[in-house]
Amino acid sequence: MDKLEEIMRNVAVKAPLVHFITNYVTVNDCANMCLAYNGSPVMSDDIDEVEDIVSLCSALLINIGTLNNRTTHSMLTAGRRANCLDRPVIFDPVGAGSSALRNKTVRLFLRELEFSVIKGNISEIKNLFGGFRDTKGVDAAQADLVTDRNLDESIRFARELSMMSGAVIVITGPLDIISTSLKTYVCRNGCPLMSRVTGTGCMLGGVIAGFVGANPGNVLAATAAAVAAMGVCGELAYQNMEQQHAGSSTFRGLLIDSMSRLDAQMLRKHIRLETR
Amino acid sequence: MDKLEEIMRNVAVKAPLVHFITNYVTVNDCANMCLAYNGSPVMSDDIDEVEDIVSLCSALLINIGTLNNRTTHSMLTAGRRANCLDRPVIFDPVGAGSSALRNKTVRLFLRELEFSVIKGNISEIKNLFGGFRDTKGVDAAQADLVTDRNLDESIRFARELSMMSGAVIVITGPLDIISTSLKTYVCRNGCPLMSRVTGTGCMLGGVIAGFVGANPGNVLAATAAAVAAMGVCGELAYQNMEQQHAGSSTFRGLLIDSMSRLDAQMLRKHIRLETR
Amino acid sequence: MDKLEEIMRNVAVKAPLVHFITNYVTVNDCANMCLAYNGSPVMSDDIDEVEDIVSLCSALLINIGTLNNRTTHSMLTAGRRANCLDRPVIFDPVGAGSSALRNKTVRLFLRELEFSVIKGNISEIKNLFGGFRDTKGVDAAQADLVTDRNLDESIRFARELSMMSGAVIVITGPLDIISTSLKTYVCRNGCPLMSRVTGTGCMLGGVIAGFVGANPGNVLAATAAAVAAMGVCGELAYQNMEQQHAGSSTFRGLLIDSMSRLDAQMLRKHIRLETR
Repeated sequence: MDKLEEIMRNVAVKAPLVHFITNYVTVNDCANMCLAYNGSPVMSDDIDEVEDIVSLCSALLINIGTLNNRTTHSMLTAGRRANCLDRPVIFDPVGAGSSALRNKTVRLFLRELEFSVIKGNISEIKNLFGGFRDTKGVDAAQADLVTDRNLDESIRFARELSMMSGAVIVITGPLDIISTSLKTYVCRNGCPLMSRVTGTGCMLGGVIAGFVGANPGNVLAATAAAVAAMGVCGELAYQNMEQQHAGSSTFRGLLIDSMSRLDAQMLRKHIRLETR
Repeated sequence: MDKLEEIMRNVAVKAPLVHFITNYVTVNDCANMCLAYNGSPVMSDDIDEVEDIVSLCSALLINIGTLNNRTTHSMLTAGRRANCLDRPVIFDPVGAGSSALRNKTVRLFLRELEFSVIKGNISEIKNLFGGFRDTKGVDAAQADLVTDRNLDESIRFARELSMMSGAVIVITGPLDIISTSLKTYVCRNGCPLMSRVTGTGCMLGGVIAGFVGANPGNVLAATAAAVAAMGVCGELAYQNMEQQHAGSSTFRGLLIDSMSRLDAQMLRKHIRLETR
Repeated sequence: MDKLEEIMRNVAVKAPLVHFITNYVTVNDCANMCLAYNGSPVMSDDIDEVEDIVSLCSALLINIGTLNNRTTHSMLTAGRRANCLDRPVIFDPVGAGSSALRNKTVRLFLRELEFSVIKGNISEIKNLFGGFRDTKGVDAAQADLVTDRNLDESIRFARELSMMSGAVIVITGPLDIISTSLKTYVCRNGCPLMSRVTGTGCMLGGVIAGFVGANPGNVLAATAAAVAAMGVCGELAYQNMEQQHAGSSTFRGLLIDSMSRLDAQMLRKHIRLETR
């Protein structure tokens, strides 16, 4: 990707302020990951202030991990305001498919809001746009995971969804797909341990939000850079963890550590991103 | 305990999905600890979706650490559904005794729900079943702690409560008691620093939930194995922390790390569990 | 400061129970930091129990980081009860100035409650007492930061606010000011990385609460000791992090580690506190 250095420079220099309306499970990791790439996180979910807050910010991240009726209204209100102000809105439909409430809510959001980026695992993305499918909690069904075997089919699917929604579609998995209706990146960075720690997906949502917030004219490339940056941080954290003979909690910390030390040069060295 | 290897194998192979309705203080640690033993955590507390979510899961964990009226109803609704579906429900009555609301709520739950396991420190357990006693926040009063001095008396108490409630009773402390009305395990694993880190009790609740969820036919043994596993992880983490000359936050991370590397062989080697 | 050893001894011996009504982003760090100085944290925010809980505690900490209408009422109710019982109430007006709701709420609290300590960055403190100013989320505007350049002016400002409110005023920044209307401490401890990790300000609020709770007759000195203790922990954590070639997440853990190992002697050795 030729714009990588420019994208990383914008993130570092603009220090994007990101408004998070997200779940209470991984919110602390999302905040620290945002600070690690030099962003500035603001967590705010009361319906009486989200319009004020989103007006101050470069991007809005909506994550429905611990969906509840109180914050659903705040998400809609903040999202509409962000749309009015032309600020990018990033949507992470966590656990789509695992309850009727989630399905109803994600469809409501799809109808009412315009998203710059929609990110999920393959189960979430399929549920978001289609009917009901087997979901095992918030994790993707094994058979659906994007691999080289089903890559072409998955890319076609992502492009269709981008055409339908107008959003950049990110499908995370062993391979990550980042796609508009016309152009697709496939990212091969990352490591399996990332799925054994809670919040790596939520953190990625927040990284995308900051990268897009700092690069509003380059949504696709900024999203791909964010996905690759998280993957590279996962690889560096894994190496480091193995050297320490440590475990999953140490890995989680090292993931954020890696982001706090990542620069364009390191990212360029390790990135494995293909254009399709 | 002769079933240890079987219990650990079931946890590893079945990768139990656990529904948590828990407090917002330690929820992230509970999720990561669950992933560390190869479980899969789902945190969901909206009354409009908890029935859907609990139906997908192997066990339900109810923890009232940050009790509030919104989630109390969700806990009851999820608990009733789990009872209908014959899924194990684990109850952690955090801070029972520290407010009238908590006392009212835990008694409501005892009347309305059937628990497979009830776990608390001695103050919480006494408050749950008895009248009011001095509680210092969520920690047990010093004089009440289970030690060798009052062990026989404490075991009699646990057996009575198990008879009354039909649940396996776990009383945590310097010694841990795990008991039905007929059979009791006493666990001598663990270390004092575990009480100087928030969430070790909450995490234990989540470990019990997954172990019981993967071993529904062996609730007592699975619960005892979970208690011993947490204690062994505490010991390994403490050793590791001392080698690093580190402090309590590092210890917290190493506790989860240890679980992510624990197997039946290591647990067998370190377990100190007596049958009474 | 001549009372340092006495203040630290009281914290260690009394093990103050602190009632937190705080945000869900950094609540876990606040709890672990409180345990690290030998305090005992209780997080409770339901309006039906906060009066019971605050009655058990040595101090109340009110932090509006994730302000919402539900907990606003609980904060008021708990604060009034604490005032009645003459327990110290510490106020952390996170993000004051960033929304109309926040401004309205902080003024309501200032009218209705008596605070022992009010702590914020310069933007928050200015917004609390004055009109609207530019706020970038929850971080202070760069131009306003307290440095040697504007120190005298900032001290005059803090003394006025203390006169108006009756509270000890803490203004955090590159230099920290701790002031009554008559006497001011300036603290030069700390390190810049503390602002690149979420929750260092929230944790400081909780440290002040415990230190004041254990030293109710010495509010100013206890607050200054708490600010200095956090700063020293930041310095020790930074050294340690650099030795490990680690990053911001490791730093966060080491901050809590340092507090768990801090004693009066270490604090005395590193403290940089001036009286004005």
